[in-house]
Amino acid sequence: MAAWEENVRKVIPYTPGEQPLRTDIIKLNTNENPYPPSPKALEVLRSIDREALRKYPDPEAKELTEELAGYYSVKPCQVFAGVGSDDVLAMSFLTFFNGKKPILFPDITYSFYDVWADLYQIPYECQPLDDKFEIRPEDYKKDCGGIVIPNPNAPTGVEKDLSEIEEIIAANRDVIVIIDEAYIDFGGTSAVKLLPRYDNLLVVQTFSKSRSLAGMRIGYAFGNEKLIKYLNDVKYSFNSYTMNTVAAAMGAAAVRDDVYFRETIDKIVSTREWTKKELARLGFTFPDSKSNFIFASHAGCPAAELFEALKAQGIYVRYFAKPRIDNYLRITIGTDREMKVLVEFLEQFLGENV
Amino acid sequence: MAAWEENVRKVIPYTPGEQPLRTDIIKLNTNENPYPPSPKALEVLRSIDREALRKYPDPEAKELTEELAGYYSVKPCQVFAGVGSDDVLAMSFLTFFNGKKPILFPDITYSFYDVWADLYQIPYECQPLDDKFEIRPEDYKKDCGGIVIPNPNAPTGVEKDLSEIEEIIAANRDVIVIIDEAYIDFGGTSAVKLLPRYDNLLVVQTFSKSRSLAGMRIGYAFGNEKLIKYLNDVKYSFNSYTMNTVAAAMGAAAVRDDVYFRETIDKIVSTREWTKKELARLGFTFPDSKSNFIFASHAGCPAAELFEALKAQGIYVRYFAKPRIDNYLRITIGTDREMKVLVEFLEQFLGENV
Repeated sequence: MAAWEENVRKVIPYTPGEQPLRTDIIKLNTNENPYPPSPKALEVLRSIDREALRKYPDPEAKELTEELAGYYSVKPCQVFAGVGSDDVLAMSFLTFFNGKKPILFPDITYSFYDVWADLYQIPYECQPLDDKFEIRPEDYKKDCGGIVIPNPNAPTGVEKDLSEIEEIIAANRDVIVIIDEAYIDFGGTSAVKLLPRYDNLLVVQTFSKSRSLAGMRIGYAFGNEKLIKYLNDVKYSFNSYTMNTVAAAMGAAAVRDDVYFRETIDKIVSTREWTKKELARLGFTFPDSKSNFIFASHAGCPAAELFEALKAQGIYVRYFAKPRIDNYLRITIGTDREMKVLVEFLEQFLGENV
Repeated sequence: MAAWEENVRKVIPYTPGEQPLRTDIIKLNTNENPYPPSPKALEVLRSIDREALRKYPDPEAKELTEELAGYYSVKPCQVFAGVGSDDVLAMSFLTFFNGKKPILFPDITYSFYDVWADLYQIPYECQPLDDKFEIRPEDYKKDCGGIVIPNPNAPTGVEKDLSEIEEIIAANRDVIVIIDEAYIDFGGTSAVKLLPRYDNLLVVQTFSKSRSLAGMRIGYAFGNEKLIKYLNDVKYSFNSYTMNTVAAAMGAAAVRDDVYFRETIDKIVSTREWTKKELARLGFTFPDSKSNFIFASHAGCPAAELFEALKAQGIYVRYFAKPRIDNYLRITIGTDREMKVLVEFLEQFLGENV
């Protein structure tokens, strides 16, 4: 080992879902939207002024934050924009979880939370979900340094009722409560409406799922004006210009195209409900999903085995070899055709192997 | 103050150069390239596949890192890509400056270094430049936690000879030495060629200046394979997908268009040399610049006064109200026409006011 390696921060890198270069596969492993982004966003991309690109972007990404503020009925100063919700969340951890007490989040949840906590040396305590993969609000009513809860949760897809989310926020007025709503648009109820009542609430959303722009990396957060200012102060001191000119313009155009947004979501929700029925028919069990994926288990066949069989067939889903969830597959909702191919393969495979 | 504010990380936010929305000004305040990016990069932007944008980008931005590796004759595993060199540098501070000893950088330098050090609680010691704004290599030959030196330095524009840079790297084999080469393409000699000899060297460059892509946020670093792996591990644990699909593709196209790159640089260098002569004629003094800006002072008129007079005229330059440099203006090299307007105004203003 070279001497300089002593001072290096060593981390266990996060393993993202595979992004195979093959295009002949059915990719249901990273919760991407099966439909392309709004044609209006594409028009904006095609017409970007060459001259604009030689200049630094607007550090506030005002075009985007103002569009989001209008759409969600908040003030522009209540919106923070970042390079994907991962950037927004990581920046929020760094900004708001700066105390000595542990922060709280579920034991089964988005796998970046503990990574960021470790990276920034933030103490944390995981709160176990119950047997139905539900958050227990009473676990979050104790002295702590902050809270982060995804709603709907990942990788379970389970939505917690907003009244119970509110209970948790109300019981923690002295710390920041982050509600990570990456999947909220697929049928959930957003905590955005609670903002006028709680100055300790930060709601984080993303363009990567419901708005089909994972490739452009756009995330955002809503909070009270003061809270957003703290977040921007830290962001600007880290990197003043993070969201590039093209991403901000495309994001704004996607928000303006509400008709396309709603059509796309309706299609995915309808495909999800069809897939639920089919998976149930094949003997799968799963918590009810309000997201764009289903977290499913089969009593007759180990998830790891199904995962490999699907992969061999060119159907990529996500498998987590982790305690409590190592017999589940997280299956992203694709197009009707993709889900039909999946179901047909599972039917045949389970018929032969169970 | 709300109770939750106690746990908030408070920082003094970096103040970037103004990005005025007026387009009728001459903008010489943020070291942007006066020429637009390569038309080849624009073609790539216009032809991006809509379908690609719904998917997460390649976390390694391979298209870009492989193109850079080929151009600079290093291996792809020796290239790290980030969202502007600010992202690359901040990530490098977090990854490599994790010891207890202070890191070293010049007292007059890029204003983000101390901000990142404070943000990550990294101890640091500033080493004063000499009276000619030169780095003194002997200041960097002592026990320390790491070194970061911009070459050419900002906001002075002064290039340090590569042999002296090498001395510093050689004297610090046990820590990481970062050479920040944001302005290297305007006539400097890169430390990239030292990479085979020093495993403790990280060279950071950017697309924001010489490649006219400030609006797309593309930065990169070269180092030995192991060092780049550490950097990627931290990056992936922070945010797996930071460089968006459009930026990576445009960056790669810009590297491929070497003819345009060289033409643009030649024009800027030639305009810079003309501007030097004119400024000298008007009584300005300045250290010799190897960058795309000139750091100039006038014995007859305070810089703060010149700054305001220029701004009133619609000519934006950069002024830093900081010790030792508060009588200097940092003037970005624009087009020939822009520099002519600047010089004509200065000639008239100084004639009337000195």
